[in-house]
Amino acid sequence: MEMEDGEQGGWGSKAWDFLSTVRSVSPLIQCITNFVSMDLTANTLLSAGASPAMLHSSIESPDFTPHVHALYINVGTLSENWLPAMKVAAQLASKFNKPWVLDPVAASASGFRLKACLELISLKPSVIRGNASEIIALANVSFGSSSTKGVDSSHESTDAVEAAKSLASSSGAVVAVSGAVDFITNGNRVVGVRNGVPMMQKITATGCAVTALIAAFVAIDPSHALEATASALAVFGVAGEIGMETAGGPASLRMHLIDSLHGLDQTAVISRVKIVTV
Amino acid sequence: MEMEDGEQGGWGSKAWDFLSTVRSVSPLIQCITNFVSMDLTANTLLSAGASPAMLHSSIESPDFTPHVHALYINVGTLSENWLPAMKVAAQLASKFNKPWVLDPVAASASGFRLKACLELISLKPSVIRGNASEIIALANVSFGSSSTKGVDSSHESTDAVEAAKSLASSSGAVVAVSGAVDFITNGNRVVGVRNGVPMMQKITATGCAVTALIAAFVAIDPSHALEATASALAVFGVAGEIGMETAGGPASLRMHLIDSLHGLDQTAVISRVKIVTV
Amino acid sequence: MEMEDGEQGGWGSKAWDFLSTVRSVSPLIQCITNFVSMDLTANTLLSAGASPAMLHSSIESPDFTPHVHALYINVGTLSENWLPAMKVAAQLASKFNKPWVLDPVAASASGFRLKACLELISLKPSVIRGNASEIIALANVSFGSSSTKGVDSSHESTDAVEAAKSLASSSGAVVAVSGAVDFITNGNRVVGVRNGVPMMQKITATGCAVTALIAAFVAIDPSHALEATASALAVFGVAGEIGMETAGGPASLRMHLIDSLHGLDQTAVISRVKIVTV
Repeated sequence: MEMEDGEQGGWGSKAWDFLSTVRSVSPLIQCITNFVSMDLTANTLLSAGASPAMLHSSIESPDFTPHVHALYINVGTLSENWLPAMKVAAQLASKFNKPWVLDPVAASASGFRLKACLELISLKPSVIRGNASEIIALANVSFGSSSTKGVDSSHESTDAVEAAKSLASSSGAVVAVSGAVDFITNGNRVVGVRNGVPMMQKITATGCAVTALIAAFVAIDPSHALEATASALAVFGVAGEIGMETAGGPASLRMHLIDSLHGLDQTAVISRVKIVTV
Repeated sequence: MEMEDGEQGGWGSKAWDFLSTVRSVSPLIQCITNFVSMDLTANTLLSAGASPAMLHSSIESPDFTPHVHALYINVGTLSENWLPAMKVAAQLASKFNKPWVLDPVAASASGFRLKACLELISLKPSVIRGNASEIIALANVSFGSSSTKGVDSSHESTDAVEAAKSLASSSGAVVAVSGAVDFITNGNRVVGVRNGVPMMQKITATGCAVTALIAAFVAIDPSHALEATASALAVFGVAGEIGMETAGGPASLRMHLIDSLHGLDQTAVISRVKIVTV
Repeated sequence: MEMEDGEQGGWGSKAWDFLSTVRSVSPLIQCITNFVSMDLTANTLLSAGASPAMLHSSIESPDFTPHVHALYINVGTLSENWLPAMKVAAQLASKFNKPWVLDPVAASASGFRLKACLELISLKPSVIRGNASEIIALANVSFGSSSTKGVDSSHESTDAVEAAKSLASSSGAVVAVSGAVDFITNGNRVVGVRNGVPMMQKITATGCAVTALIAAFVAIDPSHALEATASALAVFGVAGEIGMETAGGPASLRMHLIDSLHGLDQTAVISRVKIVTV
């Protein structure tokens, strides 16, 4: 892994610009997300300065989605009732040129879910963020592999990066793979983020929450989705690092992470953000 | 704004009477609320001494609603599936003389939602609590205005108060408008509450939670819904003020607010409640 | 109440064995639970070292349930939509010899709910955990009593224990009754757990969360469901006791409880677990 653009400061400044613009613009983010993550997702967006709207009904999206800054779709507690509403909202986002971001939670948990994720990906998300297993599963079926076996979190990072590049190329989306190092790619460039602490995985819905934050960052500058995605992952990770300094376990980390995200200042962001081009 | 009843102590004592009666009676509050707010709403009611029951199915309400002390309906994550169940419960509440309280979240987000709110209002809630945008939107359509444009949180307080009075008069409900100062009116009297801290708006579902608390307070004395509503708003605001003294951000404020609500004593309530007649 | 197996240490060691095995195996627990409890339930399982999966759709369970270690079903926010999915998952669990655990929240709140609980019980849960009212209601109807009146939390513990034994005998499940003392029975043996603090009842979904923890413990050793159940109740109670030492109210207790559960060590578990044979 080597540096691009010469210095750390470049990425830190970008990340700070995204966060401070979110705070000043307060983009409206429509969230169609799973039941488990709604509370943390809304509080993450609020603490970052964005404006969350948990509004999912397909009867409402035609009136509402045209007015949002970005859309966030998460399939965590997917059901047959919710999938059509997700598609309606995604189609509206595309029609009205709103960026939208997909979190394909547990993509390979069932045939229904995998197919649902592929259908959603065909509706042109700006960004897809998942863990290695999810991205590999989606890349494999996207490329016609008949096997989704062996898709678990033990996959090598290298495999995940190749899968992410493939999925990015085939879908046109920026693809982010979360892990000890997060990788973000548009199919050509690959950027790595080394922020965050392991205990964040012991808090439910931190992945869902950071994907929502990606939507808020992308809303600010849709034409730089890769930079926005890397910045959101880094900023959330920095908030976790600062939160960890006073946390006594996963529940207090969750609290301090949100408090830290709300309180982040330019110095902390610029000095702590660790984004590199791979 | 001028004082009524001569002294602050009068309202402080009323607010304390409501809270201490909730603690001793532990009213059962049926909540049909949005997915985002269920956790905070239940914990707010529990910490205030009430007994929450998140039970929403229309197949259950005929057996259950007749036995509750009050009903709380919140349209935050409305869908076509849930609206009929809300109506069934509201009708049962009216039939069995149970007070019920409406939170018309994002009333103007869609035509479907605005119509749903108006249908629910026609089922005679005891109290409606919303922000300025929501109350103005409802008042405008209630009075036949064809325009719901320009409904946002930048509305002047004066506009909101007039809208609240109109909506109260047309609906028969006590109407509360949340803001830096909360206004509560029955169409004639207008009362203002100056408790709370700005950071409460950075916590998702605090509005939903305080509306549930209003339901618990109204359950204690349905014939004094205006006093109950003002008292609930003030008590929740006081809990926020005390919580803010040790909070480091929105997530710790959320925690300290609930802890404070649970621990509030007579001295704190009487000395801190700021309710005035406008 | 008298001791069995001679010493406290026996049960403390068992409880520690269950917890440390959960941490090393990280059993996958499918949760079909109510909306209110999803966040706390997922975080409880994560902090104990288990792996929660909130996946409820009947279209997904045929692919997913065969791969889990245990299934948890909770009827808290039951609706007609969700009941069939619960049954499908329970049937799959039975078919694939996976233990499954039922939380019959507010079993007697409606005729629909009581019938739903009985139908689920006929699908052979390994464990049923409820409060005295719920267990008495289920035992009464299971035995053909036409009356479910008077089912409230004021029931004597003695009544609850007899009801639990009856329900255990008729259903084949281990039955746990939560209270100041928790009782666990397989119809013959009765074990009591004296851990926990009263303020845990002021936090929503602690009952739901501990039932999920039971599922994780039973997943480790399904043939010892009574021991697993008592151990989970004791360990969760110990986490609450330690959490209470630094809590300032119900919201901070919730946080410290989860932190404590994550940090529990062998010494704390063995010295604090209070399980006795009645």
